[in-house]
Amino acid sequence: MKEHFTVTPIGRVVSTRSYANDDDWDAETTWIELDSTVVAPTAAVGLDSFSHIEVIYLFDRVTEEMIETGSRRPRGNPDWPDVGILAQRGRMRPNRLGATICQLESLDGARISVRGLDGTPVLDIKPVMSGFLPRTTVTQPHWADEIMREYW
Amino acid sequence: MKEHFTVTPIGRVVSTRSYANDDDWDAETTWIELDSTVVAPTAAVGLDSFSHIEVIYLFDRVTEEMIETGSRRPRGNPDWPDVGILAQRGRMRPNRLGATICQLESLDGARISVRGLDGTPVLDIKPVMSGFLPRTTVTQPHWADEIMREYW
Repeated sequence: MKEHFTVTPIGRVVSTRSYANDDDWDAETTWIELDSTVVAPTAAVGLDSFSHIEVIYLFDRVTEEMIETGSRRPRGNPDWPDVGILAQRGRMRPNRLGATICQLESLDGARISVRGLDGTPVLDIKPVMSGFLPRTTVTQPHWADEIMREYW
Repeated sequence: MKEHFTVTPIGRVVSTRSYANDDDWDAETTWIELDSTVVAPTAAVGLDSFSHIEVIYLFDRVTEEMIETGSRRPRGNPDWPDVGILAQRGRMRPNRLGATICQLESLDGARISVRGLDGTPVLDIKPVMSGFLPRTTVTQPHWADEIMREYW
């Protein structure tokens, strides 16, 4: 039995990038503008005592028909294996949720400046605590190394 | 203007922990059971070529009235500073979204065994790619070191 839950963006990512593109995220200047009708002005107080934040957001430009619920080759590349959508980090996924760890540049009230994010509704922001990062060695398949080569 | 979006769990975390508790997560045996009415059986194919996965889930036992939209002391501890809910990783947050990086133990079709998670609806699973982890040194306030002392 399917359950449904409602989420409400707490803010929006505002970016200098005006077109959709998978790569070169480091070139972007970006900030998150919190929505004062959803969270209080104090919601981000103390966030700047952390070096990194994790942003959970919604790929709102992905339509229902674009969503993959099975498997596909990452970025449609014939050189890479056919893998399940949950084994990839692509946009066209169930629930359209993105999660990115990014460096916090500055906090000014409801404006949180970061590096490397695009313009989408933000559902949550969490501080990155070192204890929550992987505690054992991270290993990944070869295609995951290749896909990251041009990303930043 | 508030926008609302609907999310549908892709599965559920099934855990040996039967009571809510903030600490000692490493003692738990846990698996994620994917819901075949939401994702295809192929959705997790290849996930076991990664050592770690990121799980995005919903703290569904947190009610509307429990949600903090401003600031509070983490875990109500008077020794820790009053910080915004977005500068904490606690459950009682806007949109009630949790995100945890955990070690993948095994994959058996729609059953994904992991360590260190509780029993909540799962909204997304993403592979952890080393290129998406912090690329600069992670720093955090003193209370964040203390809060993690008993966690695992």
